[in-house]
Amino acid sequence: MKVLMLILDGVSDRSVNGTTPLKEARTPNLDELAKRGINGIMDTIKPGIRPGSDTALLSLLGYNPFEYYRGRGPIEAAGAGIRLKPGDVAFRVNFGTVKGEGSVFDKIVVDRRAGRISDKKVLVDAVNAEVEIDVEFELADASGHRAAVVFRGENLSDKVTDSDPKKIGENVKKVKPLSKEAEFTAKVVNDFIEKSHRVLDGHPFNIEREKKGLLKANVLLLRGAGKTVKIPSFEEKYGMKLAVVAGTTLIKGIGRLLGGDVIEDKRLTGSKDTDLNLKIKMGLEALKTHDFVLIHIKATDEYGHDGDFEGKKSFIEKIDKAIEPLLSLDFSEICLVVAADHTTPVTVKDHTADPVPITIVFDQVRTDDVMEFNEFTVYKGGLCRIKGEDVMNIVLDLIDKTKKFGA
Amino acid sequence: MKVLMLILDGVSDRSVNGTTPLKEARTPNLDELAKRGINGIMDTIKPGIRPGSDTALLSLLGYNPFEYYRGRGPIEAAGAGIRLKPGDVAFRVNFGTVKGEGSVFDKIVVDRRAGRISDKKVLVDAVNAEVEIDVEFELADASGHRAAVVFRGENLSDKVTDSDPKKIGENVKKVKPLSKEAEFTAKVVNDFIEKSHRVLDGHPFNIEREKKGLLKANVLLLRGAGKTVKIPSFEEKYGMKLAVVAGTTLIKGIGRLLGGDVIEDKRLTGSKDTDLNLKIKMGLEALKTHDFVLIHIKATDEYGHDGDFEGKKSFIEKIDKAIEPLLSLDFSEICLVVAADHTTPVTVKDHTADPVPITIVFDQVRTDDVMEFNEFTVYKGGLCRIKGEDVMNIVLDLIDKTKKFGA
Repeated sequence: MKVLMLILDGVSDRSVNGTTPLKEARTPNLDELAKRGINGIMDTIKPGIRPGSDTALLSLLGYNPFEYYRGRGPIEAAGAGIRLKPGDVAFRVNFGTVKGEGSVFDKIVVDRRAGRISDKKVLVDAVNAEVEIDVEFELADASGHRAAVVFRGENLSDKVTDSDPKKIGENVKKVKPLSKEAEFTAKVVNDFIEKSHRVLDGHPFNIEREKKGLLKANVLLLRGAGKTVKIPSFEEKYGMKLAVVAGTTLIKGIGRLLGGDVIEDKRLTGSKDTDLNLKIKMGLEALKTHDFVLIHIKATDEYGHDGDFEGKKSFIEKIDKAIEPLLSLDFSEICLVVAADHTTPVTVKDHTADPVPITIVFDQVRTDDVMEFNEFTVYKGGLCRIKGEDVMNIVLDLIDKTKKFGA
Repeated sequence: MKVLMLILDGVSDRSVNGTTPLKEARTPNLDELAKRGINGIMDTIKPGIRPGSDTALLSLLGYNPFEYYRGRGPIEAAGAGIRLKPGDVAFRVNFGTVKGEGSVFDKIVVDRRAGRISDKKVLVDAVNAEVEIDVEFELADASGHRAAVVFRGENLSDKVTDSDPKKIGENVKKVKPLSKEAEFTAKVVNDFIEKSHRVLDGHPFNIEREKKGLLKANVLLLRGAGKTVKIPSFEEKYGMKLAVVAGTTLIKGIGRLLGGDVIEDKRLTGSKDTDLNLKIKMGLEALKTHDFVLIHIKATDEYGHDGDFEGKKSFIEKIDKAIEPLLSLDFSEICLVVAADHTTPVTVKDHTADPVPITIVFDQVRTDDVMEFNEFTVYKGGLCRIKGEDVMNIVLDLIDKTKKFGA
């Protein structure tokens, strides 16, 4: 028996005059799943704790985020394709633009995205080839102006500040140690920032950009330091082969951190223009070769961040159409979980801790009276209110992949 | 004020085409209790964790099974009447039959139940009288071919394997240490198995059986090693005198482990042929002399293991008739809890983690809209979804036997 988990990022809302985009949207397919399944509301971490998409997803996959989450750095680095080892210290990186004289730390950040550069692979390669510091490092290219860097060696710490000033017109910040043990790390990272700046600033690719009137991508802005912890792979933990179908680097990163196969396609953009039909198709395809498939849809969250009620509603209707093939699954063999990772109310424009809808469809579940999949109905269902950390256990029990405790 | 807890072992199910034996059964009395009480569903251990009857019952009685459960051995030994001390290593035992030459470990198990022998007390006494090994031990008779043995002394460990090969046609297995510290225990236990075999094989009772064409009960097959931990008695913990009315050795064992009085009668068989009316009558009788009475009914679980929907349904209807006297209890003085310990779906034929129905009847509880006691109704009740570990606290609060935390 296999599991398909469909995560609709931030799909749920708080009440806007008694309704929500999910309630307003016409969603015959989601409603049909709610009718066939068992429903509830869920605190993906715990009541009142606002989840990130990363911490929520770790929790939903049965990995306690308080134990395994060490900041965005390692996840982004894994998402960018770096094979992390325990002890590695990873950062998220922006390619940015600095102007001025002297050390990189005396220069001013004039753009945090280097004019939204994206074809920067040659610069990544140059830094990896030409920079030498006191420890091993690896810079990895990611989408747009983004990258990730990992430092590897003895005595490295993630208790250091960001170099990214977060706004333009300010100096690149020196990375500062937050503890005595982190002094060496801060020194090494600052050395990396200085030396990579020199390589980038003089690189023919950037000279060429300058001639064309484009901004030079001549600084690496680091943030989100995180030290990689030992994390059991999904397959070790559950004896099931994991596939993650996602367009978002963060979600791919979690898939890779857990040793899963990440199913990618450039048409899966992790944004509003993603190809939803393709995503569902690829997810169903992956179910043939994997035991557990996670399909992640991101844009519902983006509409929440934008505060766009109508846009969110329309996109939910698009999702509803795209998931029609899920109704034909063989629910004697496949357990389907549909849920959000957190609430992203259009009224708040950020994640909140309001619990999220969850529906589990499987032949033997105790169906309840819930007829619609939304925030005002699912809590009346047979799951009542559960936690994210319980989902994997509940699902493993349903598909008979769990052991009895006792006799 | 007193408490009566009625546990219907494995009474709940997963959905079978939208229904269950409990839903299909005509249960006017259980339904009346649900109407008068407050209802909910319950994870006896935690969501998604499949309970044994033993771990579930410990949890329901407020004993964290992760702390106090150490395998079946100690519970079966307590059930067989041995007064355990912390540090004792206990095993479940089958009287079996071996044939062959030389050491017991070179012989072949031809029957794991010695022809379902039951009148074996004389053999138990002989082993206790004649076998000498390097530590103290006690063999105790139990029902049918079953027994239990306890080893007592310094430096004993439960990190040893079983001697029971679990199938016929194989050798008796040498008990193996699973850690360096367990080497002494393995040696002692193997010595016990060898020496008890010699006593049994030559015993006049077995010689007589052989003459009659019966199988000799000439080997003790050990399994389920568990080291007894210090466990506070029910009376120490709650200041209430416990009585357990049960036919199943496992449940009696838990009652004895917790220092309770076990109310027995050979008509309470712990099986499908048990005298349900007598069981309820003895439970009500025990309420006169005890503060907390647990009545345990086993056969619902057996019908689940058998996959027998109709049998389970009929037996539930029998239970419903038998519990009619409970409706006349004085609920201003007695708090009644009716629940399952775990789900045993006829579709799975084993325990699952699906949450179980629970009803609490007491004059002051907030009654809810639940009109029927089954898996499709109770979750809508006022208890919502609770955990087994919360039940004792809820009940102690209701009967006013708890203290305020704070001012």
